[in-house]
Amino acid sequence: MVGKDRFFSDLGRSYKPGIITEIVLAAFEMAKKGKKLISLTGGSYDPPSLPVAEIREVLQEVPDTAWREILQYGSNQGYWRLRDALSKFMKGSEITVDPEREVLVTTGSQQALDLISRVFINEGDIIGVGSPTYLAALSAFKQFSPRFLTIPVGDEGLNLGALEEELERLRREGKGMKMLYVVPSFQNPTGVVMPQPNRRRLLEMAEEHDFLIVEDNPYGYIAFEGEPPTPIKAFDEGGRVIYLSTFSKIVSPGLRIGWVAAEEEIVKKLAIAKSAVDLCSDGLSQYVASELLSRGVVERQVRKVTDVYREKRDLMLESMEVYFPKEAEWNRPRGGLFLWVRLPEGVDASEMVFEAVERGVAYIPGSNFFTDPSKTNYMRLNYSFPSKEGIVEGIKILGDLLKERV
Amino acid sequence: MVGKDRFFSDLGRSYKPGIITEIVLAAFEMAKKGKKLISLTGGSYDPPSLPVAEIREVLQEVPDTAWREILQYGSNQGYWRLRDALSKFMKGSEITVDPEREVLVTTGSQQALDLISRVFINEGDIIGVGSPTYLAALSAFKQFSPRFLTIPVGDEGLNLGALEEELERLRREGKGMKMLYVVPSFQNPTGVVMPQPNRRRLLEMAEEHDFLIVEDNPYGYIAFEGEPPTPIKAFDEGGRVIYLSTFSKIVSPGLRIGWVAAEEEIVKKLAIAKSAVDLCSDGLSQYVASELLSRGVVERQVRKVTDVYREKRDLMLESMEVYFPKEAEWNRPRGGLFLWVRLPEGVDASEMVFEAVERGVAYIPGSNFFTDPSKTNYMRLNYSFPSKEGIVEGIKILGDLLKERV
Repeated sequence: MVGKDRFFSDLGRSYKPGIITEIVLAAFEMAKKGKKLISLTGGSYDPPSLPVAEIREVLQEVPDTAWREILQYGSNQGYWRLRDALSKFMKGSEITVDPEREVLVTTGSQQALDLISRVFINEGDIIGVGSPTYLAALSAFKQFSPRFLTIPVGDEGLNLGALEEELERLRREGKGMKMLYVVPSFQNPTGVVMPQPNRRRLLEMAEEHDFLIVEDNPYGYIAFEGEPPTPIKAFDEGGRVIYLSTFSKIVSPGLRIGWVAAEEEIVKKLAIAKSAVDLCSDGLSQYVASELLSRGVVERQVRKVTDVYREKRDLMLESMEVYFPKEAEWNRPRGGLFLWVRLPEGVDASEMVFEAVERGVAYIPGSNFFTDPSKTNYMRLNYSFPSKEGIVEGIKILGDLLKERV
Repeated sequence: MVGKDRFFSDLGRSYKPGIITEIVLAAFEMAKKGKKLISLTGGSYDPPSLPVAEIREVLQEVPDTAWREILQYGSNQGYWRLRDALSKFMKGSEITVDPEREVLVTTGSQQALDLISRVFINEGDIIGVGSPTYLAALSAFKQFSPRFLTIPVGDEGLNLGALEEELERLRREGKGMKMLYVVPSFQNPTGVVMPQPNRRRLLEMAEEHDFLIVEDNPYGYIAFEGEPPTPIKAFDEGGRVIYLSTFSKIVSPGLRIGWVAAEEEIVKKLAIAKSAVDLCSDGLSQYVASELLSRGVVERQVRKVTDVYREKRDLMLESMEVYFPKEAEWNRPRGGLFLWVRLPEGVDASEMVFEAVERGVAYIPGSNFFTDPSKTNYMRLNYSFPSKEGIVEGIKILGDLLKERV
């Protein structure tokens, strides 16, 4: 059978298996050999915390009339009761939007990122991203060949001084940045939080330099110390913020429930794009999601996982104190799901990961979170998914490996 | 608040509300005024036939271990048990594929069409489509600016003689068609079936002229007379057929369960594209789908809706005999969900539809199914969704309106 590669488009050719695929495949090989693998990779949910009983209860009580709606084609904008419930939920984050016009349900936030890419990015458009930032957002944007403007992420999130300089430079060149992608609360992968004054300043800059802000907020709810940070969207007078959030980290990743809150003109456009892409989202999970919201299950789950993840974070940090070499540095995240580790220059975490998998632990090499793949001395570690034993054991294995390498 | 139109990309600008949106909005207005609207528009499921009891039963019996899998992130290629069950199901259509390598689960067939568009279509690539053909496929392809080669669809489907001429003409110009999109069984909108000899000839032509075939088969199962036609994929030695099918017409549209069967190289590429687009599909509906398959519910549903839709087709045809003017012509579909009506030249069904909605019945104007929007004297009528009373009443209202116009 002749290969089909000659038929692929340029975009088709750009789709290559990523590092995560390779790690997953290596993990699969381990499982086949009957060897254990501790996963500190993805942002999966703490298994015992999954709201199984609550979802079972919802499903037992679905009325006949609801079934008729669930099992037919739905609105491309999303199940109306879910949009209603989401707009009430967002009030808890001080965001006020009209569920009829300003909310779109998506198949997780990934779909929102993909729709945004389609609807906004022409080839060569300048898109600002943090360095580092969420890797799957980069994958979505890259499909439409933007020019990335990378802004360093420091202890207070995006370095606004650096951003200002870049914007001024662009202005002198007669150009402008169209859109900025930011994860301001417990950023993936660094865990940092953009302070409130910076958020207001960013909105002012968006107004001055005429750009849109894509605010991605999957983790903001999981705050270990004090209240969840108020989203940028809460102060968005100019309608420049396209706010994304999701159930994936607070309720369940598998239900694929994400949403967008934005100005009507933008939501309508994204909804039309969505109808070209999958017509509408799954009716059953949208119904379940709306019930979990109206029954207060989501808020209870947020509190539950916040407590569980705080404990797991503490355990991982303690284990790292014991087992990691002093040459490794890491943050102490005040929320979210991940730890970010910096190794000495010259230690290649991308190459090291396969040895780690052989020894029974997997992590995500940090280079994937930069547009510049040469930054290889970082690792992202997840604590939400592994068991407590897995955390201690995984950190010990990694620590031993690091001691050989640093 | 300043408008955001200046931020939209070229692709973003191309997304405009379609005729269906306008009809839906008009229908909504009718509902608000408390007026009844009989919908002969979409391909929705006969409401009493929806497998509500069967799905309830499946959900009551989900074991704990399955919940843990359902609610976490899944494989971008789809739930393995569902791929297994789909490959067994496809054996009933004489298609043999490896569920591990050659099957991809998608969010309905629309997602499959979108992924195929991304992975194969460069701007200017020549894509063959029938005239008329499924409008949402055209929407998916258009996103990547192909050049459409339109081939007339006659009583036996795509006119292969016309296709051969076009391919020869392209060859003389030093060009070639990359891909052909075909709905060979109870085509949407014409209802025609491509006979088996033509299917073999088409495969030969694909080999001679080196193109891929996207075979879209949502309706083939719903055959009113005799056995369902054997898909082209069943004879695909060269791996040139990308086969699409879906639960939407046989089980439930709202579950959003579609799938692709194709050569491994193609499935792997589509799966990578899918991870950029939504990471993975919803776990709950995939689980339900795999259970419905393994319990034999899907096959029972196929038989059930085939009987129901045969009756409804007959009722619609009888009503049209009584109420439609003699100047209107229509087919007698041997399967599927739709009737295709041709009106005299000069009657504009696109303009007429709003008057029809005012009078209480909606249909899809046929111009939407052509790449050339000037063909306005066709209507597509759906019989799967409306009640029997709705069919008779809707046809009477339409008939009265037509008599005023022809």
